[in-house]
Amino acid sequence: MNLDNIRIVLVNTSHPGNIGGVARAMKNMGLSRLYLVAPRQFPDEQASWRAASAGDVLDAAVVTATLDEAIADCQFVVGTSARGRRIPWPLQDPRSCARRMASASATEQVAVLFGREDRGLTNEELQLCNLHLNIPTSADYSSLNLAMAVQVVCYELRMLLDAGQLPASEDDEWDAPFATRDNMERFYQHLEQTLVDVEFLDPAAPRQLMTRLRRLYSRVRLDEMELNILRGILTETQKWVRKAQPQDVSGASGAEDYTPKTK
Amino acid sequence: MNLDNIRIVLVNTSHPGNIGGVARAMKNMGLSRLYLVAPRQFPDEQASWRAASAGDVLDAAVVTATLDEAIADCQFVVGTSARGRRIPWPLQDPRSCARRMASASATEQVAVLFGREDRGLTNEELQLCNLHLNIPTSADYSSLNLAMAVQVVCYELRMLLDAGQLPASEDDEWDAPFATRDNMERFYQHLEQTLVDVEFLDPAAPRQLMTRLRRLYSRVRLDEMELNILRGILTETQKWVRKAQPQDVSGASGAEDYTPKTK
Repeated sequence: MNLDNIRIVLVNTSHPGNIGGVARAMKNMGLSRLYLVAPRQFPDEQASWRAASAGDVLDAAVVTATLDEAIADCQFVVGTSARGRRIPWPLQDPRSCARRMASASATEQVAVLFGREDRGLTNEELQLCNLHLNIPTSADYSSLNLAMAVQVVCYELRMLLDAGQLPASEDDEWDAPFATRDNMERFYQHLEQTLVDVEFLDPAAPRQLMTRLRRLYSRVRLDEMELNILRGILTETQKWVRKAQPQDVSGASGAEDYTPKTK
Repeated sequence: MNLDNIRIVLVNTSHPGNIGGVARAMKNMGLSRLYLVAPRQFPDEQASWRAASAGDVLDAAVVTATLDEAIADCQFVVGTSARGRRIPWPLQDPRSCARRMASASATEQVAVLFGREDRGLTNEELQLCNLHLNIPTSADYSSLNLAMAVQVVCYELRMLLDAGQLPASEDDEWDAPFATRDNMERFYQHLEQTLVDVEFLDPAAPRQLMTRLRRLYSRVRLDEMELNILRGILTETQKWVRKAQPQDVSGASGAEDYTPKTK
């Protein structure tokens, strides 16, 4: 477990005071890497005031224009979410989630995403995640303050760190590194293009197909070798489509060619 | 366990904003009984603002002049404390403490005391307690915001309350049944045949390809709808291969035809 490999990513935060509260909650629990995706107001004196003695976390915060930039190099991405999304995603409480994050953090870059104060993360943002984290609440009032949510998650990580005993996880002794978000995105683009090529996906009526496939492959957490295999299959499939449509050969596919390194 | 028998007692709170944050944290986790011992400023609009939709908790808050009044009828009193008091006291982390409070709350009145923002509870106040609760922190910065500390304790109570109701796994609330072994095996056969058809898999030198793909898809636990999608893609892919090889159309593929029911 390595807290330095776990970043907290706040997406489109409205109130700078919350950013300060988050910084303090993080430092209290031993985390230091804060990413701010297009915050409405930052830096700000409200943020500094609420951060109290965690000004160093604020100073070191990385501000990005897009979520993609903030998580491009991450192999494990967790999104905080309320229950009841239309398409269910693997959903865990903060405790189970912290276990997964903690073991991944030994060798990988981990991100936990927190959405806007008023409406959380979008479905699109949630679909970038390997896992969704839900903080249990009373049915009467389920909307936690942003900094409180960060506090709960960081607290669970701290409890694990102090316990000093981590469960064995899938990440240990795996035979290939897990795929980065960047490479996953390239795979999804390639997959989508191939499905259009084979006429399984109608771009005019895509329905939930890509969403379901993204859920499937983000759930499994592909390793780089598996990614190579899948992209190799896509490339071969595209070749057959071109062969069957010789007249279209020049522009049959928008996806880059890809030669699998490993089968 | 009865959350209505557990009260949160704030002693000499300085900042009304914190009182509001506490009220919200309590209501989020299903607690409602707030006691304020000689608060510096209450009621206050900062408190109401931070309480957001927990104004009812603030309205019902009991203000007392002394700590004794606030806990007179309690059978079990817990005091939050930093480590390293001069006189050692039974000290537990929030998780163990929550278990003790939860079981006591079935039949007894339970209080959790939170001290002043700047210096916590006095030794005298701590000596009124049955148990001391310590929230683990980084050695670099051990002073939690008051409302954050309440959030952590209430969260642990909530986790206990929900235990057994939370999804232990992804299976709960999933939108499609998980695939049977039978159907998985048919999928693997179909996948293997398709990979042979597209000449990605050489039956004479299969190497570890199918093993890796089986590991991938068994790891993810496909649901039946996902299985339908994947088999639909395979079927389309095979059609393109046949189209490109019209001379072989009769026996191009050994796999059964499959029409996806759902995309």
